[in-house]
Amino acid sequence: MKTATCPIARSLGDVGDWWSLLIVRDAFMGRRRFSEFQKSLGLAKNILAARLKKLVACGIFRLEPASDGSSYQEYVLTDKGRALTVVTTALRVWGTRWLFGNDPDAPLVLDRVTGEEIVGFGFRTRSGRLVPPSEIIYVTEPIRRSSPRRRARPMTQ
Amino acid sequence: MKTATCPIARSLGDVGDWWSLLIVRDAFMGRRRFSEFQKSLGLAKNILAARLKKLVACGIFRLEPASDGSSYQEYVLTDKGRALTVVTTALRVWGTRWLFGNDPDAPLVLDRVTGEEIVGFGFRTRSGRLVPPSEIIYVTEPIRRSSPRRRARPMTQ
Repeated sequence: MKTATCPIARSLGDVGDWWSLLIVRDAFMGRRRFSEFQKSLGLAKNILAARLKKLVACGIFRLEPASDGSSYQEYVLTDKGRALTVVTTALRVWGTRWLFGNDPDAPLVLDRVTGEEIVGFGFRTRSGRLVPPSEIIYVTEPIRRSSPRRRARPMTQ
Repeated sequence: MKTATCPIARSLGDVGDWWSLLIVRDAFMGRRRFSEFQKSLGLAKNILAARLKKLVACGIFRLEPASDGSSYQEYVLTDKGRALTVVTTALRVWGTRWLFGNDPDAPLVLDRVTGEEIVGFGFRTRSGRLVPPSEIIYVTEPIRRSSPRRRARPMTQ
């Protein structure tokens, strides 16, 4: 997976199991310590330890001394890890739409400013256009040879 | 996972393993037959069969008679399955940005309409407001009890 030419395959090599993305989701919710993840996920300690070790090795988390000065270590998302919000959000969008049926307890996704419900999701260009997945194109060799590379600029969210 | 209140967890219950999303990716690329998936993914037949069976059970694929009139069956994405393009695109966007380093053969993700590079993602409300991720709120119990439900309308992409 590490050397796959397909970025989807390569991404799944890093985060393609149930638990890794749930650990990242928990980190977005503010959890930082092994015991916090363990309590939240109810995951066997050896499995959680292996997943966290891999996520650190992948550069998704980094280890830091505890923020309260205690001897614990904390798992902090790197820029690469925080950027996974595009993946967790996509899973949230799909799950919210397709996996709750008519469940009255289904979650809602709302605009904080207007209170309106969100009805669309898309990918954003630098100029601010919201592009639906159907209008995305993937440029690989040899097409790219004829177009300028612009990857030096970081992808922000 | 099937009963998780978190839509991310619920989504991962359906598609949270390496192979399932690669099978869906292959289907987006036009593959429909067991032998096509098997050749593309190099996956053991028993594992592929189990994954496809689960994806059919989840309503992501449906089985259809072969389009050429032969006795084969084909795996066709349902609406729910096609909607996973939001997830595979998110994985592609993240992987493209973070997993190729300075590789000159790295792929690009572009807006088909403007040719601009994708740099992030966002949401749209019914009235057309474009909402950045930082202005989104996820409403779960008990907050929702005080707000009207409007989930009958599907989230489009």
